Amino acid sequence: MAKQLTGDDLHELLKEQALLEENMALLSWDQLTGMPVKSGEFRAELMAYLTKRYLKVTTGKKAKALLDYYQLPNNQSTLSIDDQALFQRFSHDIKYVINVPADDYIAFERLKIMAQDAWAAAREKNDYAIFKPYLEKLIHMTKQLIPLWQTDEQTPYDVLLGQYEQGLTTKKLDSIFNQVKQGLGALQQELQLNGETPDNQFLHRSVPKGLQLRYIQPTIQRLGFDFERGRLDDTVHPFMQDMNRNDARITTRWSDRDFKMAVLGLFHEAGHGMFAQNVDSKWDYTPFNKGIAMSIHESQSLFNEVIIGQDEAFWYHEYPKLQDIFGDVLADISFEQFYDGWMKTEPTLIRTEADPLTYPLHIIIRYEIEKAIFNDDLDVSELPALWREKYRTYLGVVPEDDVTGILQDIHWADASFGYFPSYALGHLYAAQFRYAMNKELDISSLLQSGDYQPLIDWRRNHIWQYGASKSPSDILLTATGEPLNPNYWLDLQRKRYEKVYQVKVD
Amino acid sequence: MAKQLTGDDLHELLKEQALLEENMALLSWDQLTGMPVKSGEFRAELMAYLTKRYLKVTTGKKAKALLDYYQLPNNQSTLSIDDQALFQRFSHDIKYVINVPADDYIAFERLKIMAQDAWAAAREKNDYAIFKPYLEKLIHMTKQLIPLWQTDEQTPYDVLLGQYEQGLTTKKLDSIFNQVKQGLGALQQELQLNGETPDNQFLHRSVPKGLQLRYIQPTIQRLGFDFERGRLDDTVHPFMQDMNRNDARITTRWSDRDFKMAVLGLFHEAGHGMFAQNVDSKWDYTPFNKGIAMSIHESQSLFNEVIIGQDEAFWYHEYPKLQDIFGDVLADISFEQFYDGWMKTEPTLIRTEADPLTYPLHIIIRYEIEKAIFNDDLDVSELPALWREKYRTYLGVVPEDDVTGILQDIHWADASFGYFPSYALGHLYAAQFRYAMNKELDISSLLQSGDYQPLIDWRRNHIWQYGASKSPSDILLTATGEPLNPNYWLDLQRKRYEKVYQVKVD
Repeated sequence: MAKQLTGDDLHELLKEQALLEENMALLSWDQLTGMPVKSGEFRAELMAYLTKRYLKVTTGKKAKALLDYYQLPNNQSTLSIDDQALFQRFSHDIKYVINVPADDYIAFERLKIMAQDAWAAAREKNDYAIFKPYLEKLIHMTKQLIPLWQTDEQTPYDVLLGQYEQGLTTKKLDSIFNQVKQGLGALQQELQLNGETPDNQFLHRSVPKGLQLRYIQPTIQRLGFDFERGRLDDTVHPFMQDMNRNDARITTRWSDRDFKMAVLGLFHEAGHGMFAQNVDSKWDYTPFNKGIAMSIHESQSLFNEVIIGQDEAFWYHEYPKLQDIFGDVLADISFEQFYDGWMKTEPTLIRTEADPLTYPLHIIIRYEIEKAIFNDDLDVSELPALWREKYRTYLGVVPEDDVTGILQDIHWADASFGYFPSYALGHLYAAQFRYAMNKELDISSLLQSGDYQPLIDWRRNHIWQYGASKSPSDILLTATGEPLNPNYWLDLQRKRYEKVYQVKVD
Repeated sequence: MAKQLTGDDLHELLKEQALLEENMALLSWDQLTGMPVKSGEFRAELMAYLTKRYLKVTTGKKAKALLDYYQLPNNQSTLSIDDQALFQRFSHDIKYVINVPADDYIAFERLKIMAQDAWAAAREKNDYAIFKPYLEKLIHMTKQLIPLWQTDEQTPYDVLLGQYEQGLTTKKLDSIFNQVKQGLGALQQELQLNGETPDNQFLHRSVPKGLQLRYIQPTIQRLGFDFERGRLDDTVHPFMQDMNRNDARITTRWSDRDFKMAVLGLFHEAGHGMFAQNVDSKWDYTPFNKGIAMSIHESQSLFNEVIIGQDEAFWYHEYPKLQDIFGDVLADISFEQFYDGWMKTEPTLIRTEADPLTYPLHIIIRYEIEKAIFNDDLDVSELPALWREKYRTYLGVVPEDDVTGILQDIHWADASFGYFPSYALGHLYAAQFRYAMNKELDISSLLQSGDYQPLIDWRRNHIWQYGASKSPSDILLTATGEPLNPNYWLDLQRKRYEKVYQVKVD
């Protein structure tokens, strides 16, 4: 009775989705990079129209027909291997929308908007109590949705983790994060007790934006970002937004008194951009072009920011260039002083301002709290105390108010529960890629000589070209020969910080 | 049998059209202001998708149902007066699309794209012969379409004129343009024979973009452009693009050696922007918000550029500011020297570089040639000779090649036949508005004192607020009390140039 379908039908629908996503991505970019302040209402109206259209395409008759037809193994096997993979991705993505009653979906979207307003108001008043009832409702609604998506093997929180990375579970993360906590604990103790803390005051000397840009722009180009297929703009909260592989746009903010912010910020965003620019063209107009898991995307921004951007050999080559462009500003700072100051680490309260060594602990804290909420039904009134307790335990610092504590991230106000772990995984993946790459390339020599092309090629071949067609764990396994092992990250950081702080951890 | 419809059905369809137009407008703006150079193909694909969607909305079942239902007077009379006007506009616009067989429409669109490539290639080779076969085909197809739209009273060329301004005819234009030719002829002869040609070399002194911007930005704001509902970007060919009344974006190019270009260019684009920003909000999401006739829109950009931007009293107030911001650049140039140089006129070959006095003649030449093509079946092989002949007659200059002659405009490659007259009408309307305004306001005193607000208010009340809800001739009649009379323009120019060139025309 059902009409016979072909791969073309699948591609037609995927293409319409991709075109609408590209369109909405441009609208978002525009909104964050200089859209006139008073045109917000008009923009919201246009976005609502496109979102409605996107939902119609995604859950409409054609989508349902594809789902019904190709979930039968006999039909699915008529598709090419690539198209089978695309169908599986399509049917995975669609379940987060199609199983939810339309009224619930709309109510949830509306609640998120109100919750974000409440979060902003709570931040302004520095009062968690304002946000609390909304957080409670968001958690309640999320808990109602979980059973619609849950499989037998999943804990409730696993379902949320799986939204951002298929197959990720609390079991896996518990084991990984425990290793990280242990390894970091020993290192931090040693740094604090016996380390020589470097001075980094020179990082706050005044450097005008124009000079910073003159260093950064050609550098991220040498690192692999293609300005013919991307552009750079100013914004308040830096991000990369790709429309398609020939249009990946990066943004940054600037401070005259903190050039490190823009340097590492743009290394980071350029890393995202390079990934987007180098996905195989065969995935154009499919979810494998843009639907890349956050953890693997983040591993590439962090490869630029941390693996390269905190590497001694890299700065040995780059520092004279930086000094030269900055005029007299750093004339009295030797390379050793520069690199040591650049690497200074200290535990802080705010995740987004954390250095790479302490960053994963901020994530682990959030992970453990989210797990307690969804798997152990922790009450939201207990959150602030738990937050303080965990910061004291893991970082040795305690927030004195809500803004520097529980209210610092927007993620929960957007119901993005399960998203945080991606950030930490990005750090770990990046280090493991580095380890594998170093078996084929002499990374230090290449960085020291300024020859970045082999690193770019390795990353394109082993990571970028696949886009979202492979899962993060598949990419990791193929590129490095083993599953995720946090010791590569711990070893790299230990080696770097032992040298800078002149200590030795047993 | 037909379902009963309401004004809401009409508005729903108009809103979807408006949202898609807004969306495509943003894509165009982006394409011209910094889209990465290699993303053209992706952008073309997205535009094609949206155009297809737009056509589907515009000519689909709902549109046809609205057309059938409301063309019956009994049904139409159930609509509010505003909605009746909107329906009439809708049914007028739709006939240019719905009467054309879909295949012809697509073939025509494809031909235009190829013709534009051929035009660019012809310009590069400076050879009309490359473009000629495409122009021939464009004219041929246009001639085939004309009968689909033609009414009994219209000549073929009237149909094309009516696309850009309802009710415009060769009969009207012949009479107006004859007056302009005669009046201008006498003035130009006198200037050439007895005038003192001012020196304007100082206009080519070096002024960096930053300084130019420091003068221009606050000035166009004082003239009425709202930067909270617009923005300014760099581009190759300046334009204004409005997404909606709260988002009107202007663009310019810059030359260190020609600050007049950016000053008058941005006065011009700001004039378009001010119009867009001040349409009554009741026309949001309707064709009356954005579908403004080019002639009336141009009258407002030219009001800024010519009526204000070439006014002696205005510069009397502004010149000290300009001098001050430009540092020493103009320190040795007195106000009189500045203004006389600013006003220098001379006949040239290129329309877009013409001064306001000679500009209408460039348009009249094109108008007469287009009329000959469509009403008298002039052959395209005769065009270059006719072009040269008319330039010799009207401007006393003759192009030596195709690039400075027949190939200079892109309009014909886009089949925009009938569009050129709008530019000249804009000049004439602007002067007539000035005349009427001057009966209520002492324009010279206001400009001389820097009090531009009363001029802004007058234009908002008499012109801008109506958007496209009134025809240009209606707006002109209501605002000035009489139909178009080119003598106001001729009188204004005569007065200005007699003073600058120290002559007296009888």
